[in-house]
Amino acid sequence: MIEKKRIVIDMDDVMADTSQSILDLYNSSYGTNYQKEKLLGTTIWDEQIRDKYIKVRHGLYEPGFFRNVPVMPGAIDVVTELYEKHDVFIVSAATEFPNSLKEKVEWLAQYFPFIHWQKMVFCGDKSIVKGDVMIDDHEKNLFSFKGQKLLFDAIHNQALTGYERVKNWEEIAEILL
Amino acid sequence: MIEKKRIVIDMDDVMADTSQSILDLYNSSYGTNYQKEKLLGTTIWDEQIRDKYIKVRHGLYEPGFFRNVPVMPGAIDVVTELYEKHDVFIVSAATEFPNSLKEKVEWLAQYFPFIHWQKMVFCGDKSIVKGDVMIDDHEKNLFSFKGQKLLFDAIHNQALTGYERVKNWEEIAEILL
Repeated sequence: MIEKKRIVIDMDDVMADTSQSILDLYNSSYGTNYQKEKLLGTTIWDEQIRDKYIKVRHGLYEPGFFRNVPVMPGAIDVVTELYEKHDVFIVSAATEFPNSLKEKVEWLAQYFPFIHWQKMVFCGDKSIVKGDVMIDDHEKNLFSFKGQKLLFDAIHNQALTGYERVKNWEEIAEILL
Repeated sequence: MIEKKRIVIDMDDVMADTSQSILDLYNSSYGTNYQKEKLLGTTIWDEQIRDKYIKVRHGLYEPGFFRNVPVMPGAIDVVTELYEKHDVFIVSAATEFPNSLKEKVEWLAQYFPFIHWQKMVFCGDKSIVKGDVMIDDHEKNLFSFKGQKLLFDAIHNQALTGYERVKNWEEIAEILL
C-alpha cells in the first residue's frame, strides 16, 4: 500500500492545456502557425513569442477563455487514480482573472466530476499552501513549496533548471502511483 | 516596529456580516424577527434557528447573495492597517458556492480596494493554508491551523470553547497592531 500524500495539482498547463489555447489566440492575432509540439524542447517561446504574447494577454480576461481550454492528454486517467489513492487538492492561480473562477469550477465539473469543492483552491500567490507534493509549470509557484516539487514541462519553462521535470501525466503516474 | 506576520483572514462573519444577511433571509422566510445583537451571548442559534435555517440555506447559492452582504463594523479600518503592517491573506471557503467567487472579488474591490488579487484565496478546506495567525468564526477552519488562532465571535459559535475569542475588530487591533 502506498503512503497517502497531500498532492497539490495546478490547473493551467498541468491539468488543462492552456498553452494550446494561448497559442491559438496568438496565432489568430499575428497570423502565425506556432505549434506546441514544435516549441517543446526549444526556447523559441522565450526568444520569439513571449514579448508579443503580452500584447494579446488581455484575451485571458475575456469570459469563456478558461472554460474552453482543452484537457491535458493523460490527465483524466492519472488524476482519477491519484484522487482515489492520495489527498489531492487542485490549486489554481486564478484570482487575477475573476471571470475564470466560476469557469474553472465548471471546467473541473466537466472533465473531473469526482473532484469535491472542498478540494479546490483558487488563489494568486501559492506560497500560502502546504502539502507533500506540488505539480506545477511555474517556478514562482514551486520555489517556496516545502515538499516534493514536480515541474510540468511547458513551452515557457524550457530554460528552467534545478527542478525534477515531468514531460507528461504518464511520468507523474510512474512517480506517484 | 512590530514583527511582520502572515495573517489569514476569513471573509464570511469576519470581514463580512454574513450572519446579518442569513438572518434577513431566515426572518423573511419564517416571518420571525431575530436580531443578531440579541443572539450573541446566547445559544438561541444552536437551539432554535440552526435546524430550520438549513431549509433556507439554498438562498446562499443564489446569484447576488454574497455580493450584497454588509461589511462587518470596524473591519475596513483594522484590515487596512493590518495590510500595511503585516502579510495579509484573505482566505474564504467559497468553492461550495460557485456564484460567490466573482461576487467575492467584486465585494473585496468595493470595501477593500487595496487588497491585491495575489492576496485572495477561495477554497473549501482551509487545512491547505499555512500562516502565523488565522482569524475565523468556525472551528472546522481553526482546528488544524498551526499558528495563533483567533475565534471571531458569531451567533453560531457561542457554545465553542478552547479558543481565544475576539468580539469585534477593535479587539483584533489590540492583539495584532
